[in-house]
Amino acid sequence: MANINQHYTELQGSYLFSEIAKRRTAFTKENPEASIISLGIGDVTRGLPQAVVNAMHAAVDEMAEPGSFRGYGPEQGYDFLIDAIIAGDYKSRGIEIGTNEVFVSDGSKCDVGNIQEIFSQNSSVAVQDPVYPVYVDTNVMAGRSGTFNKETNRYTNMTYLPSSAENGFKPSLPDRKVDLIYLCYPNNPTGMTLTKDELKKWVDYAKANDSIILYDSAYEAYIQEEDVPHSIYEIEGAKEVAIEFRSFSKTAGFTGVRCAYTVVPRELKAFDEAGKEYHVNDLWNRRHSTKFNGVSYVTQRGAAAIYSSEGKAQIAELVSYYMTNAAIIRDGLKSIGLDVFGGVNAPYIWLKTPRGLDSWAFFDKLLSEAHIVGTPGVGFGQSGQGYFRLTAFGSRENTEAAVERIRKLTL
Amino acid sequence: MANINQHYTELQGSYLFSEIAKRRTAFTKENPEASIISLGIGDVTRGLPQAVVNAMHAAVDEMAEPGSFRGYGPEQGYDFLIDAIIAGDYKSRGIEIGTNEVFVSDGSKCDVGNIQEIFSQNSSVAVQDPVYPVYVDTNVMAGRSGTFNKETNRYTNMTYLPSSAENGFKPSLPDRKVDLIYLCYPNNPTGMTLTKDELKKWVDYAKANDSIILYDSAYEAYIQEEDVPHSIYEIEGAKEVAIEFRSFSKTAGFTGVRCAYTVVPRELKAFDEAGKEYHVNDLWNRRHSTKFNGVSYVTQRGAAAIYSSEGKAQIAELVSYYMTNAAIIRDGLKSIGLDVFGGVNAPYIWLKTPRGLDSWAFFDKLLSEAHIVGTPGVGFGQSGQGYFRLTAFGSRENTEAAVERIRKLTL
Repeated sequence: MANINQHYTELQGSYLFSEIAKRRTAFTKENPEASIISLGIGDVTRGLPQAVVNAMHAAVDEMAEPGSFRGYGPEQGYDFLIDAIIAGDYKSRGIEIGTNEVFVSDGSKCDVGNIQEIFSQNSSVAVQDPVYPVYVDTNVMAGRSGTFNKETNRYTNMTYLPSSAENGFKPSLPDRKVDLIYLCYPNNPTGMTLTKDELKKWVDYAKANDSIILYDSAYEAYIQEEDVPHSIYEIEGAKEVAIEFRSFSKTAGFTGVRCAYTVVPRELKAFDEAGKEYHVNDLWNRRHSTKFNGVSYVTQRGAAAIYSSEGKAQIAELVSYYMTNAAIIRDGLKSIGLDVFGGVNAPYIWLKTPRGLDSWAFFDKLLSEAHIVGTPGVGFGQSGQGYFRLTAFGSRENTEAAVERIRKLTL
Repeated sequence: MANINQHYTELQGSYLFSEIAKRRTAFTKENPEASIISLGIGDVTRGLPQAVVNAMHAAVDEMAEPGSFRGYGPEQGYDFLIDAIIAGDYKSRGIEIGTNEVFVSDGSKCDVGNIQEIFSQNSSVAVQDPVYPVYVDTNVMAGRSGTFNKETNRYTNMTYLPSSAENGFKPSLPDRKVDLIYLCYPNNPTGMTLTKDELKKWVDYAKANDSIILYDSAYEAYIQEEDVPHSIYEIEGAKEVAIEFRSFSKTAGFTGVRCAYTVVPRELKAFDEAGKEYHVNDLWNRRHSTKFNGVSYVTQRGAAAIYSSEGKAQIAELVSYYMTNAAIIRDGLKSIGLDVFGGVNAPYIWLKTPRGLDSWAFFDKLLSEAHIVGTPGVGFGQSGQGYFRLTAFGSRENTEAAVERIRKLTL
């Protein structure tokens, strides 16, 4: 008899965005004339950079002719893209990364979701709270989470690292030994970052405890401040303890194009039951080449174009557009006395709801009184209760209009 | 301490294609003047159909402008593609498939590799032998295979279903109850198929034993004969027992573009430990939306163009080109007395090596005497020993030259 993966029964409903959609639909039905502005979903809205567009057109033409057609490529990605990544994102910052340490994929969501597979089912796992739900859900599916406690809104076997205004959104190190630690900086949803010194504490913890850090830096391109590390490998010794995930989704508007990469240094080791050492790089390479077949050639050509001088200028412009939105939201909300976080090195603004409203109550208020959809912080975890996320990915016009509407509210 | 997934230690080296490359390199070094023809790897070589090229160009242009830009799409695929798939591949054959039963992905390799995740780790698994290695390796990674026995060239806990000339490449039903059965028709590597009546036996077995059939029909477009089913759902009741995998890789030259789909009927059920029934469709939907983020919009537009009348005509031409190659190889080898299989409803020719040569000895003979690279059958499993695979995906010119060279050999 075909039995299911029993761990799937521990998954909680993917409640957040469906609940948002439900409340929005109900409101629109009652108020068909309301013009709703969504600053809810973390998805870009500008067009692809022209350098990317040109490169993709050229690649499509290559694919049309037998002489230049490309069939199966290397599962790990084409050298032209890997070389551009290494030169543009690492060598330029003084970090040496080898060609065989970069794995091109169709998205960071896939990579951060799949990475746990190569580790033991008995691994103990720490996640920030609030957090991107994929880190948790994929460990639930693998049987590492324990059961869900509805009282605490948490799984019994996961280690949660709370971040809130109280600790400046800089979670404490785990109070127990954990094997795998998911860190996301610049952070989604809070938009907050760590300095090099602060990140070094995590690398030191991982070294002392033989832990592995799974470092998601999908929003790296939005970093503006000097002392914020662009890569965890800027921290000495991080290659021995960290895997880094990067994405072109937010850097270059690739959410609908699908390209990302993961760096797994050769220095990173893990152990089998007998204590024998393995290169984590070899395990990931085996996983990647067995269950994945490479990214579209057309997409990889588009991604490589981001590293041309034309491409670099265009993505700087894109990032600047969204970060101007972020400043507009941040300054607008501050001006009416709200406690606002993020939005400086990330396209997310994380605000403390006024008068201790819970996240969903604030959602309803914003929707009904200002016709704005955002994301309730509690949807990202219990420590997000009483917070609310707005994104800077809208058009300038909508962003300005949304801030005007919020300024007129009685909070 | 970070421990690895211990099951990975049971994986065998991915020996086949690296060993082929090694022997080819060694030969070329000794014989730099030799002009080698490869009929080894199952990868297409013609350009993309013009309808696909046009659709991809148009989609790239849409992505360049904010007004028509597409960010994150539905993880399951856009309706314009799903509707085209249902109309073109199912409704046209009298099969009703619902929109929520089709999951668009970036490749069948990914889908057939990932599908096992939603089932219990204790599931018993049957595979054809010879077989596409991904079915086996992904179950090894999940801990279902037992240990590898070097004497038998097989894993202890897998059920192998041998196909060879002796049984007309139609494996017997398993002699024990199995939970999951991977079937691939038209078959890679043998190029052989089943009739509707023969496939019905598998559906009946699955019904009687509460098994689930994982039906890989990546080569469906190559079917020429009347009585060969294009979909397992042509068999009555198959929706209750089968998941079907389809790919655009070989249908439309998408090996470097990456698009495929999987059908998981709502009728298909599996059970938790307490015997409670679940829709397998819900589990796959959860897996797909948690660990995957949809296929490139540009790619999906290209795939949808295959179903236009222009696209249909162009892929018919592509398939005809390769199938003419298949006939040239098949007829050529037959004319010199070789036992040849496949090549009628599939782009693979599976030949019995002359004089009982083992697969690798025949590989060496073909390489050294005819300068042709093919694939040793034993690389696909023990029952492939004494067989050899040639593919019809080369250019016409190379295919004809290769056959001429083989005809001149002393076999």
